[in-house]
Amino acid sequence: MLGQMMQQPLLISLLLRHAQRHHADTEVVSRRVEGDMHRCSYAELATRAQRLANALQLLGVQPGDRVSTLAWNGYRHLELYYAVSGAGAVLHTLNPRLHAEQVAWIINHAQDRVLCFDLDLLPLVQAVAPQLTSVQHFVLMSDEAHMPVATSLPGLLCYETLLQAAEPRFDWPVFDENTAAALCYTSGTTGHPKGVLYSHRSTVLHALAGALPDSNHCAATDVILPVVPMFHVNAWGLPYIACLVGAKLVLPGPRLDGESLYTLMEAEGVTLASGVPTLWQGLLKHVRAQGLRFSSLRRTGIGGSACPPAMIRAFQDGYGVEVMHGWGMTETSPMVTTGRFKARHAALDADARVALQARQGRVIFGADMKVVDEQGRELPWDGRSAGELMVRGPWVVQRYLGAEEDALVDGWFPTGDVATIDADGYMNITDRSKDVIKSGGEWISSIDIENIAAGHPAVEMAACIARPDAKWGERPLLVVVPKAGVPVDGETLLRHFEGRVARWCVPDDVVFVEAIPVGPTGKMLKRRLREALLGPGSA
Amino acid sequence: MLGQMMQQPLLISLLLRHAQRHHADTEVVSRRVEGDMHRCSYAELATRAQRLANALQLLGVQPGDRVSTLAWNGYRHLELYYAVSGAGAVLHTLNPRLHAEQVAWIINHAQDRVLCFDLDLLPLVQAVAPQLTSVQHFVLMSDEAHMPVATSLPGLLCYETLLQAAEPRFDWPVFDENTAAALCYTSGTTGHPKGVLYSHRSTVLHALAGALPDSNHCAATDVILPVVPMFHVNAWGLPYIACLVGAKLVLPGPRLDGESLYTLMEAEGVTLASGVPTLWQGLLKHVRAQGLRFSSLRRTGIGGSACPPAMIRAFQDGYGVEVMHGWGMTETSPMVTTGRFKARHAALDADARVALQARQGRVIFGADMKVVDEQGRELPWDGRSAGELMVRGPWVVQRYLGAEEDALVDGWFPTGDVATIDADGYMNITDRSKDVIKSGGEWISSIDIENIAAGHPAVEMAACIARPDAKWGERPLLVVVPKAGVPVDGETLLRHFEGRVARWCVPDDVVFVEAIPVGPTGKMLKRRLREALLGPGSA
Repeated sequence: MLGQMMQQPLLISLLLRHAQRHHADTEVVSRRVEGDMHRCSYAELATRAQRLANALQLLGVQPGDRVSTLAWNGYRHLELYYAVSGAGAVLHTLNPRLHAEQVAWIINHAQDRVLCFDLDLLPLVQAVAPQLTSVQHFVLMSDEAHMPVATSLPGLLCYETLLQAAEPRFDWPVFDENTAAALCYTSGTTGHPKGVLYSHRSTVLHALAGALPDSNHCAATDVILPVVPMFHVNAWGLPYIACLVGAKLVLPGPRLDGESLYTLMEAEGVTLASGVPTLWQGLLKHVRAQGLRFSSLRRTGIGGSACPPAMIRAFQDGYGVEVMHGWGMTETSPMVTTGRFKARHAALDADARVALQARQGRVIFGADMKVVDEQGRELPWDGRSAGELMVRGPWVVQRYLGAEEDALVDGWFPTGDVATIDADGYMNITDRSKDVIKSGGEWISSIDIENIAAGHPAVEMAACIARPDAKWGERPLLVVVPKAGVPVDGETLLRHFEGRVARWCVPDDVVFVEAIPVGPTGKMLKRRLREALLGPGSA
Repeated sequence: MLGQMMQQPLLISLLLRHAQRHHADTEVVSRRVEGDMHRCSYAELATRAQRLANALQLLGVQPGDRVSTLAWNGYRHLELYYAVSGAGAVLHTLNPRLHAEQVAWIINHAQDRVLCFDLDLLPLVQAVAPQLTSVQHFVLMSDEAHMPVATSLPGLLCYETLLQAAEPRFDWPVFDENTAAALCYTSGTTGHPKGVLYSHRSTVLHALAGALPDSNHCAATDVILPVVPMFHVNAWGLPYIACLVGAKLVLPGPRLDGESLYTLMEAEGVTLASGVPTLWQGLLKHVRAQGLRFSSLRRTGIGGSACPPAMIRAFQDGYGVEVMHGWGMTETSPMVTTGRFKARHAALDADARVALQARQGRVIFGADMKVVDEQGRELPWDGRSAGELMVRGPWVVQRYLGAEEDALVDGWFPTGDVATIDADGYMNITDRSKDVIKSGGEWISSIDIENIAAGHPAVEMAACIARPDAKWGERPLLVVVPKAGVPVDGETLLRHFEGRVARWCVPDDVVFVEAIPVGPTGKMLKRRLREALLGPGSA
């Protein structure tokens, strides 16, 4: 017996139409690659997205075709988000920080038909173009005034000219909500990147759950600044969430240094800003150095890699900005957990609250998780039993693009992260499974060691890696980038661990380096660190 | 081209499993019909719901079968919510305030197989039973100690005995999310009641959207008291939302007087309580008379009928409790709009903010609305053009149970309410279409008149109805229940309208009555008022 309620598919075009009808004059503010600021309303954005959908159709884009972007966070990128998916094609966001060869491989693998890119990425696109096998049109996301006089790109098109020539009315088609909407490749550290193909349904459900009070807590009164790039798992869903709740959206373009971000936040009254810890380090450094305050910022979403407790304290105690620490990955759209409190935590003291927030949090409704041992048996939720984290839910990947088999084990997606879950359902990532340090048969959490090191005033950045050891199998080695002008030696740093961790977990040694290599999404590349410090065989 | 994310149907069992796994020891507290308090955790509730699902299967309940309830808000009713729908059967909530004949008609129309009821409703069930054609089992929702010594009900079963005998493990089946989950009849003022058949999909989407910051704003730190009955449009979705966010749930049983509600709120630390204005009148009266304060209550959801501005002020200015005024109906699950502010409203003065909150608000994402003229043409969003309100969305009815045709006009559900929408998308119900007063070709909003009257200190309750008029067609007549001990005459009341409404909208006359009849869901029965005051032909 079926219910008798309206059948209305969960389509991405619904999000835009909602913003257009019910939040028509709410603003989208962008710092353009061209250098200036741009402001428009959701009503204007929706009309331009309709023009764009018509323009893409004129270029021959059919439902299911991939349209790729190499672009920073800006309103034109947002128009592509809605126009491409809304028309039934697939938005494929590319990471401009990848090597040209990797970009070319991904475009060819996805068989993108159209490639749209920001002005400053023209050199990258020109370098990539000769290797491309499927792209029929190159579109520069700017106006005629900014078109290059000469380019090696065949028939380069101008975004604004295409829009001007297109009809302003486009009726968003209605189709199966399981239709592919967007595509994002994981930057795997080994092997080729893998494509995750999001559906309209997965995207809209993720946006609904992601706006809840215990997720990103988004309302129409919010001003949202996604510092996390729109090419990185759809900026964690924020471009969709902003339309869903009718919040003002502030898009920062390519300049993500502390001063640029701070100026933008203050000028636009940003209430919620989300990004990875490495970017927030730059912001906090700037604010500290200049003795500034945040006048509108209330909450910050932090994810992508573990947020050190020191950063949580800096935001909350120093500036009254609440930290929402979450966890997810490209394969999970990405949000699975956030570290929001339960009622009983009101009674905890400040340190205990920060310790809880430093974990990755509890699941958002819709998703589920468990930790399993090496035989796949579910481990107890005791906060101590570490095992591989498995997740599932309507916005978790089932199969990678072009793969012949599902990526699942018994219906769960194996994340490659090692974690514990406590009795309240708070998950704590202790390691990537490939970064685990196994000493005398016991696991040492490299992330715990890094967080403790990062809490020392002389440490700018820290990584903990496994060094082969004849007696123990492996022992932890601490790699540190010292803060400029704060002299420190290894012995002092190691003493800092006393009483903060079991004696056998204290690293054996400290190596000081000028920089720790980070990948295109801001994560530390420990494999490269192991190669550089311990020799090629150690990676 | 389809996306490649996990296929996981949106089932009601997901809500319970989420609470069971991730909020296992969060409490459900009930004031029992038996008189005492009952406390259990979501983990315990989930196990009991599994036992209940097994027990119902033993009684022969098959997927699609209707299991009806005649019950107040309590944990056993909540177990039925999850066990019946979770197992694939249909939960049919009956309104115990309807006449026995109407209850019997509805049960027979829905062909309910099992009828579960609270202890104090045994007399009603005994009165109804002889007329029932489909019910095979009667279940008294209590324990052996409370079973009646003698009853006219054939083979009356005891709820707790059934549970004790059943297996504690039940694997919730996975099926099409469009499967029917719950059934609720509208108490139509004319003709037979009509059944609205909710699906799992519509219920889960409604719960997701309903927990958003701009809807009910629910988090795990909340303590939710649904004063709105669980037999009335699923208590506005709150029993589902509580599991979705992991909030503590407080269920008040049948005693909804001001003192009982206040005592419960204070004892359990309630942060959010939702109900109809008539009940809040009793609560506010008690709190005022006793000089009390709310120590934990932060927000109140008000709907079911229009909330007078005076009540909004009383809660907000008097007690610091934020009012969330919303609108919906049985056919819309029910939430369609809530009156949450946009960013620009921060600049409004207190009066303007209350005036905005007194409207029914803007739509929650997923739903949409428009107002149309008598030819079905969409009217402008100017805050003045009144027309019939049309709504749509994935939790809006398509067809009534057993009907042969859809209840829609061009894909929209005609609500029977007359409303305006302003440029910001805030809707304002001016009348039920059958209550409209048409004077000299112009519509006068009976709700406006009632709100103004309710703002006078001598008025306990007010209704405005149309009196036939030779010259103008119709003229407004004000019907007032005066406050005890506050003497007032009609002339004084009519002077109160000066400057508050256009001169031609001021009622011609005031009639004082001892009581205004209200229906089983707390709405004023203006049809009966017209019959009583103006004669049978006027209804």
